[in-house]
Amino acid sequence: MNGTVGEISGVTREFCARMAGVRPGDLPAKAMHEGRRGVLDWLGCALAGSRHPTLDVLLAVLQEAGGRPQATVFGRGLKLGLLDAPIANGQAGHVLDYDDTHMGGTVLHTSSPTLAALFSLAERGRAAGAEFLLAYAVGFEAGVRTGQAAPGHHKGGWHLTGTLGSIAAGVAAGKLLGLDAGRLAHAMSIAATQAAGMQQNRGTMCKSFHAGKAASSGVLAALLAERGFDGSLEIIEGRRGYCRIYSDVAAPEALIDELGARWEITRNGHKPYACGVVLHPVIDAVIEIRSKANIDPARVQSIELRVHPLVISITGVEEPATGLQSKFSVYHSAAVALIDGAARIPQYTDQRAGDPAVIALRRKVKVTADESLGKDQAEVVVVADGTRHRAVIGHATGTAGNPMSDAALEAKFMANAVPVIGEDRAQRVRDSVWNLDRLGDVRELIRLCA
Amino acid sequence: MNGTVGEISGVTREFCARMAGVRPGDLPAKAMHEGRRGVLDWLGCALAGSRHPTLDVLLAVLQEAGGRPQATVFGRGLKLGLLDAPIANGQAGHVLDYDDTHMGGTVLHTSSPTLAALFSLAERGRAAGAEFLLAYAVGFEAGVRTGQAAPGHHKGGWHLTGTLGSIAAGVAAGKLLGLDAGRLAHAMSIAATQAAGMQQNRGTMCKSFHAGKAASSGVLAALLAERGFDGSLEIIEGRRGYCRIYSDVAAPEALIDELGARWEITRNGHKPYACGVVLHPVIDAVIEIRSKANIDPARVQSIELRVHPLVISITGVEEPATGLQSKFSVYHSAAVALIDGAARIPQYTDQRAGDPAVIALRRKVKVTADESLGKDQAEVVVVADGTRHRAVIGHATGTAGNPMSDAALEAKFMANAVPVIGEDRAQRVRDSVWNLDRLGDVRELIRLCA
Repeated sequence: MNGTVGEISGVTREFCARMAGVRPGDLPAKAMHEGRRGVLDWLGCALAGSRHPTLDVLLAVLQEAGGRPQATVFGRGLKLGLLDAPIANGQAGHVLDYDDTHMGGTVLHTSSPTLAALFSLAERGRAAGAEFLLAYAVGFEAGVRTGQAAPGHHKGGWHLTGTLGSIAAGVAAGKLLGLDAGRLAHAMSIAATQAAGMQQNRGTMCKSFHAGKAASSGVLAALLAERGFDGSLEIIEGRRGYCRIYSDVAAPEALIDELGARWEITRNGHKPYACGVVLHPVIDAVIEIRSKANIDPARVQSIELRVHPLVISITGVEEPATGLQSKFSVYHSAAVALIDGAARIPQYTDQRAGDPAVIALRRKVKVTADESLGKDQAEVVVVADGTRHRAVIGHATGTAGNPMSDAALEAKFMANAVPVIGEDRAQRVRDSVWNLDRLGDVRELIRLCA
Repeated sequence: MNGTVGEISGVTREFCARMAGVRPGDLPAKAMHEGRRGVLDWLGCALAGSRHPTLDVLLAVLQEAGGRPQATVFGRGLKLGLLDAPIANGQAGHVLDYDDTHMGGTVLHTSSPTLAALFSLAERGRAAGAEFLLAYAVGFEAGVRTGQAAPGHHKGGWHLTGTLGSIAAGVAAGKLLGLDAGRLAHAMSIAATQAAGMQQNRGTMCKSFHAGKAASSGVLAALLAERGFDGSLEIIEGRRGYCRIYSDVAAPEALIDELGARWEITRNGHKPYACGVVLHPVIDAVIEIRSKANIDPARVQSIELRVHPLVISITGVEEPATGLQSKFSVYHSAAVALIDGAARIPQYTDQRAGDPAVIALRRKVKVTADESLGKDQAEVVVVADGTRHRAVIGHATGTAGNPMSDAALEAKFMANAVPVIGEDRAQRVRDSVWNLDRLGDVRELIRLCA
């Protein structure tokens, strides 16, 4: 085999040796609670996403070509193979662009790949809730820290939820399987070597497909490593490893810096709005203006935005033709936020993207990039009937600096889940997740979401 | 949907529009014959590879987690799902590093991903041999030309058989499904966005796994596109597309340069030796020296090699610990070629990598890089008992400049296939492949290889 874990020299091996040894009791209470919050929010997104038309296409193919009924597709009353259910659940979790976002040196929607992988494996055998939450937190570390080790990664054009997502999913899955240090490192290697997803596919069905494929690749990596399949044990730091070829800058030591003392899951963010996260401060500002002044959209002369430059490069779609594209349009988002006072699922449909009132208003949006603003900041001025209405956002709702409360997350979950599984089941899921670390078998929770 | 094919503006769309329109009669006789040669050689490699221990691990996982029995795993008397059999057959085809190599601006083992994908789909419904060969040639164009469009790709650390292999497999599969221009372009996009594989994993089980995953990703891409799943239609040339993010240099026009006039499959090469292709001129030279002088390996003082620099960067493993690693060791290869006069499957086992006689001799190998040499050239001097034996190779056997004859390819196929499926079936496969363009249903051929 290509190297065994004896003397720990490289960061991949050290990371995996440390993470293989960690136990549920090692997880700080805040990390455990962020785990519960993450599971609750993600299950709501996956349930709501399961009704998206994109899933119909994907499931038709997976039902023809996929595996035996082993793992639940949430919200569909359907099971697929261990490697196929994660594609569906990962895509469902991300398709609405409503799932969690980690912004600490990355822009990573960790939960869709990671939890889609873990829920699939949790149906293979009994998994306790506390072990499940630990594996989730460990996967988070792997994905986020690899991103920090490859800081040129996002700028290079990669969709991190696909690339880092594969690594997060593989390490999480390996941890849930209880792999030892060496096999966990091979799982990380096998997962990393499958990492893919291009930003070119923003606004297409492929964007959320990246999350699903990452989940599936992670499960496969862990199952292979469990049986002795090998990969390079320097997959992150090696000469042709991850932080050399996915990034123009390599910082491999980030993989182990303060490892065990800092848990990245505690810096996770949750979205109040169902669109690209960099749009959120703009939407906060527009909704604030609308709540203070009774503005008739038809009488608006202009909507002037001052934003972080990423808003233009990531969400600069001026004339979105589909609901998926509209989730990456700052023009559309400002317009619907002013018309509806909201930016949730109904605001990002194909129909709303083609709505004449929205189109008329989005053409009045003017965007100025300002390097001095943070990614969670924005200034908005709405000019209507000659009056200038202004709002400034310091930390957008749902970011680490202004987190959604547990109550707000619950309300979001219920709004997402009730239309799919009904009020009674949704309440039972919610209660089960808040007590997940005491649940003896995660399959009880899965059955409620089928 | 994200763009439809109307006015053809980008190279992705133009490539796919032209390839969607091509018919078997448009394929020149030489391309058709290279297709038959490629199928014959690859089937032999996949059959021989099916017995490799790596496949035992992979198949154990796929049998647990994989799909219903829909597609044949060659040489194993076993069927897996449409998306899983390609993983197994792609890995089997590449695990011995004995499969074909295209060297025109790329180093691509096209057939393992492409044919593993096509054979899986050919079991889904009736596919005529001529259509199968055409899809194979079209996949070849997609993979090789994308590589030419991203010329910094190999140097950047990617394993092209994984990355370009995914695109080749997806476009080949889409062509076999008869997709129209628009859907073929979406298939290419969905396949490209799954493209992965790091050179860091050379010498591990992941290297050939890349080929299998690429095959599976290609099948999935084509099946999704067939049902209307979409991706960016500028996936190769776009601002965050393939030739921007997998390469430091972009040459998107290569995708359509002389398209239809030049068929890249006619520049394919086949390996006489079961190891990294850049080693082949060295092995040719050592075998030539051995055939002329009766050299006792124990009396060798040194083996001096002058080689293209890639030989050192790709195959510079001085002390290979496993059979897989030894396939990327110029030291091991020169040693076994002198001891055995061969460099086939038995020369690259774990046992031979640890053989004391091989180890003693490989330590006497001295390698000098010479920029003036081509990748298919080498000079070798063996010093034994004070005598210098020298050979110079201008074009290694199996390269475009010195191709293996049909008879030599047949002999290689029989040596690979007979131990797995027996002489009678191997002869019938051979005869069937030489007449593949007249075969009404490829499943007849598949049954012989089960």
